[in-house]
Amino acid sequence: MRKRLICFTMVCMMAAGTMTGCRQEQSKENAIVQTESAVITVNQTEGKTPKYVFLFIGDGMSYPQIQLTNYYLNASSNVPDSKTDKKQLTSKSQLTIMSFPVVGSAQTYDSTSFAPDSASTATSIATGEKTWSGSINVSEDFSKEYETIAEKLKKQKKYKIGIVSSVNVNHATPAAFYAHQPSRNNYYEIGEELVESNFDYFAGGAMKQPTGSDKKKKDLYKLAEEHGYKVVKTQEEAKHLIGKDGKVLVIEDKLADSDTMAYSIDLEQGEWALSDYVEKGIEVLDNEEGFFLMVEGGKIDWACHANDAASAIADTIALDQAVQKAVDFYNKHPEETLILVTGDHETGGLTIGYAGTDYDTFLTNLGNQKISFAKYNAEYVKGYKDNKTKFSTVMKEVEQLFGLKAPKENQGESEKQKDSADAHPQSEEEGSLTLTQYEYEKLKEAYKTTLERTGKESTFSQKEYVEYGSYEPLTVTITHILNNKSGINFGSYSHTGLPVGVFAKGVKASQFAGYYDNTDIFKQLASVTGVK
Amino acid sequence: MRKRLICFTMVCMMAAGTMTGCRQEQSKENAIVQTESAVITVNQTEGKTPKYVFLFIGDGMSYPQIQLTNYYLNASSNVPDSKTDKKQLTSKSQLTIMSFPVVGSAQTYDSTSFAPDSASTATSIATGEKTWSGSINVSEDFSKEYETIAEKLKKQKKYKIGIVSSVNVNHATPAAFYAHQPSRNNYYEIGEELVESNFDYFAGGAMKQPTGSDKKKKDLYKLAEEHGYKVVKTQEEAKHLIGKDGKVLVIEDKLADSDTMAYSIDLEQGEWALSDYVEKGIEVLDNEEGFFLMVEGGKIDWACHANDAASAIADTIALDQAVQKAVDFYNKHPEETLILVTGDHETGGLTIGYAGTDYDTFLTNLGNQKISFAKYNAEYVKGYKDNKTKFSTVMKEVEQLFGLKAPKENQGESEKQKDSADAHPQSEEEGSLTLTQYEYEKLKEAYKTTLERTGKESTFSQKEYVEYGSYEPLTVTITHILNNKSGINFGSYSHTGLPVGVFAKGVKASQFAGYYDNTDIFKQLASVTGVK
Repeated sequence: MRKRLICFTMVCMMAAGTMTGCRQEQSKENAIVQTESAVITVNQTEGKTPKYVFLFIGDGMSYPQIQLTNYYLNASSNVPDSKTDKKQLTSKSQLTIMSFPVVGSAQTYDSTSFAPDSASTATSIATGEKTWSGSINVSEDFSKEYETIAEKLKKQKKYKIGIVSSVNVNHATPAAFYAHQPSRNNYYEIGEELVESNFDYFAGGAMKQPTGSDKKKKDLYKLAEEHGYKVVKTQEEAKHLIGKDGKVLVIEDKLADSDTMAYSIDLEQGEWALSDYVEKGIEVLDNEEGFFLMVEGGKIDWACHANDAASAIADTIALDQAVQKAVDFYNKHPEETLILVTGDHETGGLTIGYAGTDYDTFLTNLGNQKISFAKYNAEYVKGYKDNKTKFSTVMKEVEQLFGLKAPKENQGESEKQKDSADAHPQSEEEGSLTLTQYEYEKLKEAYKTTLERTGKESTFSQKEYVEYGSYEPLTVTITHILNNKSGINFGSYSHTGLPVGVFAKGVKASQFAGYYDNTDIFKQLASVTGVK
Repeated sequence: MRKRLICFTMVCMMAAGTMTGCRQEQSKENAIVQTESAVITVNQTEGKTPKYVFLFIGDGMSYPQIQLTNYYLNASSNVPDSKTDKKQLTSKSQLTIMSFPVVGSAQTYDSTSFAPDSASTATSIATGEKTWSGSINVSEDFSKEYETIAEKLKKQKKYKIGIVSSVNVNHATPAAFYAHQPSRNNYYEIGEELVESNFDYFAGGAMKQPTGSDKKKKDLYKLAEEHGYKVVKTQEEAKHLIGKDGKVLVIEDKLADSDTMAYSIDLEQGEWALSDYVEKGIEVLDNEEGFFLMVEGGKIDWACHANDAASAIADTIALDQAVQKAVDFYNKHPEETLILVTGDHETGGLTIGYAGTDYDTFLTNLGNQKISFAKYNAEYVKGYKDNKTKFSTVMKEVEQLFGLKAPKENQGESEKQKDSADAHPQSEEEGSLTLTQYEYEKLKEAYKTTLERTGKESTFSQKEYVEYGSYEPLTVTITHILNNKSGINFGSYSHTGLPVGVFAKGVKASQFAGYYDNTDIFKQLASVTGVK
């Protein structure tokens, strides 16, 4: 039985509604006004140390993901009837982070590559050191372990520490705040370091390899309990957690792909979003000594790897809503709170623009997508492969779930397709979701490859690899076509070298202005919190 | 006779050498240190008005262009022998603008599109108003003309005004500081407004349509002289200009494509670069009342439209070197100078990463390109078309000018090509400049299309349009392949919706922190200079 899907557009409209309630009125000039006050704040709080520090990391989130999300929200709310962008556009800041007073930029390269990895980039943010792609808080010769900002704040300042991630709690980014491993794939060892960390609040997706890669080791949840953690695996129990419960490990009760939290686009009504875990975290961590809360929006990255823009937008909104919880807290403690929001790297080479659509975008098209690539793979494509489902049947579900329609002549209708249907770029019906013959053939070829493919990635031809990466050919071709018909594009299935934004608000926010290296994020954090 | 080319790598090495002399020592932490001093500067200069204001606009320049240039310079200087990025990378800030203390971000949409135009975005920067793509300083109903920041500073503060562009002096971006036209294509009318502006220093590429589109109107240069301008068309004369010469219009004497300054990659030794026009501008404009100097690096945009990354990098370096001239001036007048560097929009959807190369980049490959796409078209491709040059001959020049080599079996050599040559992604020789069979066939097809094409853009198929845009198929395929073999990609031939960086240094620089709209650049400029 298929679960009830919440329409993507609905999620986004809700987001736009909730998040812009009072802010919408403030409009564009607000950022500037806030800039001035940021400077004043710095002066007033000179010498002060932020007691409550939030660090949000949108995995794979850089300027393209943020700006696209903002434009999507504007397109959806401002021009609902227009697919042609012919009337006058406007674009308000619909995202909390866009109204932060300070925005710096950080370059993200690691010791291996200009297109770095999450383990190494999180290492740089957490410790101020560069290391190899895939390594966590160890030196390049593997001889040294680096102490993280979270460990320092725990040890030197008695701050309570919280770590939240929408992916596995022992995945690379959260691990970089408590673990020290030559390889991010040492999931069990990372889990052991988690339970030994003595941190106060862990929440998110489940442990990866909880009994080791050989499935023979002692269960990490048991180990956590032995180390004094209260382990909670249902939302109902999580609701009632309070600070007095001591150290807690909260695992999402409705796990999705790879035992992580669901993509926001797939989230069912009543299910906890990232913002709920942050709200609970604040409740559990709040204390007179102070706290540090790191929150990772991990599935922005996963969606962008798969070139699934609609899911990436929904998860960017989810992260922003989680940030809003921190802003709510800031509003009660403006003189003691610092909020940072950044990305670890860009993923997918996302561009707001595409060769085939020139200067036009048709972003509302993305609202037709009602399911993440991962859920579509699990709940549909697997069945297509098992049952060798006919392409015409597949196309019906593609229309239902992604809005893409077969060209008329391929729907068996009598009306002959217009000659211009495959001429540049969708000239008859710009922004239309009806496939051109060219696109239809592409999709059919991808469908065939999905059904027939048996080989491994290394046997793919160069053309095949560029077109599909290591993803399900049918699915990635659907999202490619939908993206391109919306006027956007992905150029890679991996991380890219774009710098990330560093958004700062609160005590000493202005220390994060400028264009610097991601290692400077740690250096400034250590400096403003006064740890060594 | 072909002119002597300066090798791209040489230009870049020179850039790295010149520009990092003392700065290289300052390293990454410098940005942070400067951040602190920026805050202090604001306090010290509270109430002060910057008397010398520089505004640099990199047309089509956003974070990807800047970060790629920085990584390219690092790759070229740090790992000259490595094509595999296997040894430990480092990346210093090689660009002047990356050490600016404040970096804000501005969204760039205009009234028409999220992927806006240079006329409308420059209008927003110059006047704080949104308008249609293609319009300059007029309202959306064409009933109002907007006064620009340059006009206000001239009128209200008696500042001298300078306008420099590497493209035509009556092109959209420079025009947005002195003209008011419903269409950017009204070149003659824009030229008339130029000569009537009473601004003090114009320099760069020649007037477009100096006698009107019908070639029957009075020559704009004559008109300029009648309006009291000293018109200078040789470098030799330009050298001797001084402030006492009054209003001057300086036109580059060695004009390249479309009567603009040459791409930096094509610049001959001794020829003036953008930085020379800026240095001369400072000399001419410097006076006790103050000045405003707008400088456009216009060919970053043109190179990115054509998906020519190597030329875009060289022109980004050229803009940065021009910025250094402003920094030199700032160092003499730190309490009275404000420098802003921004872009009007991103062009080309450039990404540092490509689907076929995963997490690897091979940026030094770009150093093999020794000529801009435009010069290659003019000096080689035209001949290929006229003479129906054989593909094997073309390939020899492609190797010489871009470094791309035909696969061995296609060089007529006996050694049989390895089976894996067209397997994913160049698995035998990562980063190699030898074409895979797949790439070779693509290039050959593009060559054929270049030689045979007679139709207009509107007749291209969707596939053809996505692959070549409206560019010369052979040339754009060469740069596509070289880009991809370097691990980078372009997703569009047009502008995209990425926000641009706003880099600020000097008096009241911190007013440009935050994530805001491009109209706020004007609002802040007006506010800090005290004009209404």
